[in-house]
Amino acid sequence: MGPEEFRTAGHELIDWIADYRARIPQLPVQAQVKPGEVAGKLPSRAPEEAEPFSRVLADLESVVVPGVTQVQHPAYFGWFPSNASLASVLGDVAAGGLAALGITWQSAPALTEVEEVVVEWLRELTALPPSWKGVIQDTASSASLVALLSARERATEYSETRGGLQAESVPLTVYTTPHAHSSVTKAAALAGYGLDNVRFADVDPVTYAMRPEALAAAVEADVAAGRRPAAVVVNVGTTGTTAVDPLAQIVSVARQYGMWVHVDAAMAGSALLLPEMRWLIDGVEGADSLVWNPHKWLGTLGDCSLLYVADPDHLIRVMSTNPSYLRSAVDGEVTQYKDWGIPLGRRFRALKLWFHLRLDGVEAIRERLRRDMDNARWLAEQVSSTPGWRVLAPVTLQTVVLRHEPAGLVSGTGEVLDRETLNAHTLSWADSINASGAAFVTPSMLDGAWSVRVSIGAEATERSDVAELWNLMKQAVAT
Amino acid sequence: MGPEEFRTAGHELIDWIADYRARIPQLPVQAQVKPGEVAGKLPSRAPEEAEPFSRVLADLESVVVPGVTQVQHPAYFGWFPSNASLASVLGDVAAGGLAALGITWQSAPALTEVEEVVVEWLRELTALPPSWKGVIQDTASSASLVALLSARERATEYSETRGGLQAESVPLTVYTTPHAHSSVTKAAALAGYGLDNVRFADVDPVTYAMRPEALAAAVEADVAAGRRPAAVVVNVGTTGTTAVDPLAQIVSVARQYGMWVHVDAAMAGSALLLPEMRWLIDGVEGADSLVWNPHKWLGTLGDCSLLYVADPDHLIRVMSTNPSYLRSAVDGEVTQYKDWGIPLGRRFRALKLWFHLRLDGVEAIRERLRRDMDNARWLAEQVSSTPGWRVLAPVTLQTVVLRHEPAGLVSGTGEVLDRETLNAHTLSWADSINASGAAFVTPSMLDGAWSVRVSIGAEATERSDVAELWNLMKQAVAT
Repeated sequence: MGPEEFRTAGHELIDWIADYRARIPQLPVQAQVKPGEVAGKLPSRAPEEAEPFSRVLADLESVVVPGVTQVQHPAYFGWFPSNASLASVLGDVAAGGLAALGITWQSAPALTEVEEVVVEWLRELTALPPSWKGVIQDTASSASLVALLSARERATEYSETRGGLQAESVPLTVYTTPHAHSSVTKAAALAGYGLDNVRFADVDPVTYAMRPEALAAAVEADVAAGRRPAAVVVNVGTTGTTAVDPLAQIVSVARQYGMWVHVDAAMAGSALLLPEMRWLIDGVEGADSLVWNPHKWLGTLGDCSLLYVADPDHLIRVMSTNPSYLRSAVDGEVTQYKDWGIPLGRRFRALKLWFHLRLDGVEAIRERLRRDMDNARWLAEQVSSTPGWRVLAPVTLQTVVLRHEPAGLVSGTGEVLDRETLNAHTLSWADSINASGAAFVTPSMLDGAWSVRVSIGAEATERSDVAELWNLMKQAVAT
Repeated sequence: MGPEEFRTAGHELIDWIADYRARIPQLPVQAQVKPGEVAGKLPSRAPEEAEPFSRVLADLESVVVPGVTQVQHPAYFGWFPSNASLASVLGDVAAGGLAALGITWQSAPALTEVEEVVVEWLRELTALPPSWKGVIQDTASSASLVALLSARERATEYSETRGGLQAESVPLTVYTTPHAHSSVTKAAALAGYGLDNVRFADVDPVTYAMRPEALAAAVEADVAAGRRPAAVVVNVGTTGTTAVDPLAQIVSVARQYGMWVHVDAAMAGSALLLPEMRWLIDGVEGADSLVWNPHKWLGTLGDCSLLYVADPDHLIRVMSTNPSYLRSAVDGEVTQYKDWGIPLGRRFRALKLWFHLRLDGVEAIRERLRRDMDNARWLAEQVSSTPGWRVLAPVTLQTVVLRHEPAGLVSGTGEVLDRETLNAHTLSWADSINASGAAFVTPSMLDGAWSVRVSIGAEATERSDVAELWNLMKQAVAT
């Protein structure tokens, strides 16, 4: 395809996207397709001859769109806000058109330097320590793996350059809470620590935040048993309830044992743009790394996860390679992001952040974040003040964890009396809302029983959409 | 930014991209900026107020484009073909516009199922075993890490679920050749094997391909010393010279010891679309995994790396997580790609492959690949038949490794007599071409001396461009 053919098709596609975005409120939120339904509409072999663009665009409309849960929908209250602002989409379009090769500084100096500038913009906006340096990763899963690899290598004084973790004699341990994201245990497993060496410190029964005393006790027990505490993953805004582990207190425990402190603020990091929410990471200057995802609540098209580290030299030492065909005369003067993560080749992801911040402006983004937290507080008030309903966790950010409790299933003090019936009821009404396509919420386990997470923060979600969800929920439990 | 504002800006951006792509032949190939020059043109803080699109587009033109080495240029002969066909760019634009959330099948059934269909298309096109299953990863670096993690877990019977690699008593070893890509040793280091346990088997001095006898000897020595050979990474098309390790013979060694066989065909995989090149992976049915990157020579916009595995159940067991908030009623019936790699969230990368194959058609892609190999053979003939020049490695695919050898620096049998002077000469003429902006080649070490790699295969590169490069090289060594 040449530039002129691209121009014609590109204009059609832009119009299609604009039309699609405009009509999302009319689409069902949850994809209504059955397993295999999308694949069944596609040919089993690739075409030998080129097809016209109109046919591909028609498939996009008739096959793909019905097969996608509409996370940009104003009634999307699922997993987490997964916003993709149209400003950031434009930045990604520019990146695709440029198709720069991001393997070294030399292959695309602008890819590296725009990224350096934009991650520094966001460091300043989130008030992270001025000496910290950032890099864009694909996801928090990868960033947390990089953090736990960095922790492993610090604890073993670069065992990777010798016999590897397998040659170490003192077992390393990793700490977090039972409310940590699944990517944390996955990272610990992949980094070679082994699940037997992952400790889940107790949380406070009301806030679901890590109890520093529980962490200290676990660490002390491991040290007494001859193990070496290597890292603690601090959850700032858990997936389940947006619980906030007390970072400063955790840092003071970790520092005694030389542990790596990694902060997982994947969802909550966006809130750090608000000065009134900076308390979320009080004590961060004593931590070693922090990850947060602009591709969630902030609204930068995914994939776009930010990993900040206190000691970039250590990260580079863990991750660097230097083959002859990638060397250049300026190596000592420039940043080589290939040595800041797992992949060698990197896309020009900084452009979508750059476009997003410039075209939307920071003040408007802050206002939207505040709107979402207001909406969450409003919903929590409605739920709390309505008999038969309960808010199950503090509403720290934009997520309300709630349950409808038919008479007799839960005691006055909140003790579940008939778990099986309650669970069936919860899943049933949540599924009925999701199946209707009118809104989308995520059931989640909390204290061994199913609850429903209402995660507010789609870019399009206004107070009226939250009010409509509240009506839907009341109707759903009544039928 | 709303849909109508996006529509207006999107049309401008599409026109800008079409114009940019059309004028690439007039741009210098190598970015001509100095370290810090791009960053120096950007403000140090993010804008509080939204900026107009015209200003961002102007910066794209004046700041970003000059800061990018033009890998889509017809005179780009650098690292490896890094093609981004405009058909695939459209697919990526569609993915951005849709902004589907790829965390589970349920979050975007089409994201999963189009990927299943397209990776199966490519499996059939590359004649990989029908029982193998594929998944899109970001890069071969990540895919090879996943492969070496899978090897580690098979060798240790899922140590990650117990005490981890650190609790294992028998040291695991990994094998490849000195010509393996840097990502292979990086993957071994990150997976915890340790660099002391990576063996570089000797290669044939002419073909630079692994000597299976050398592999067998290394494996036997390790077994005799009480170590356990866990994996061998087979290079099909090395970065340096496109050397092809003899897969079938390596498989027969590896099978005796239960080793994981991972095939790194990152660049060469595209050639498997040509029936006459299938010999590259003779014996693959005895291997465990293979990675190749459509984002290189095939021409699908990056990031787009394909990992195929013989035993997806094993991969899933190594990579899976199953938190409550990601469970759904259809879990047993669908593919959950989150369990096929490191990241949880995944972009809709299948769309760019789907658009690329459909809009360009497979036959046209095959013709282009054959054109490039023809051009490489033609250049090798010119170089070989010209006094003072030497082709240093077999031209198996589209890369010609060559050197200009001024009188007295190299003996008649090819022995380097004055390495220092020869190296300075090689780097000097290669750098002079790159600095001119007229073409771009990559110096690379081979047998301890610098050579120049001419990697042919930009989508725009025709025979006349290769002939022009040959003229440039002859001029460069004469000045």
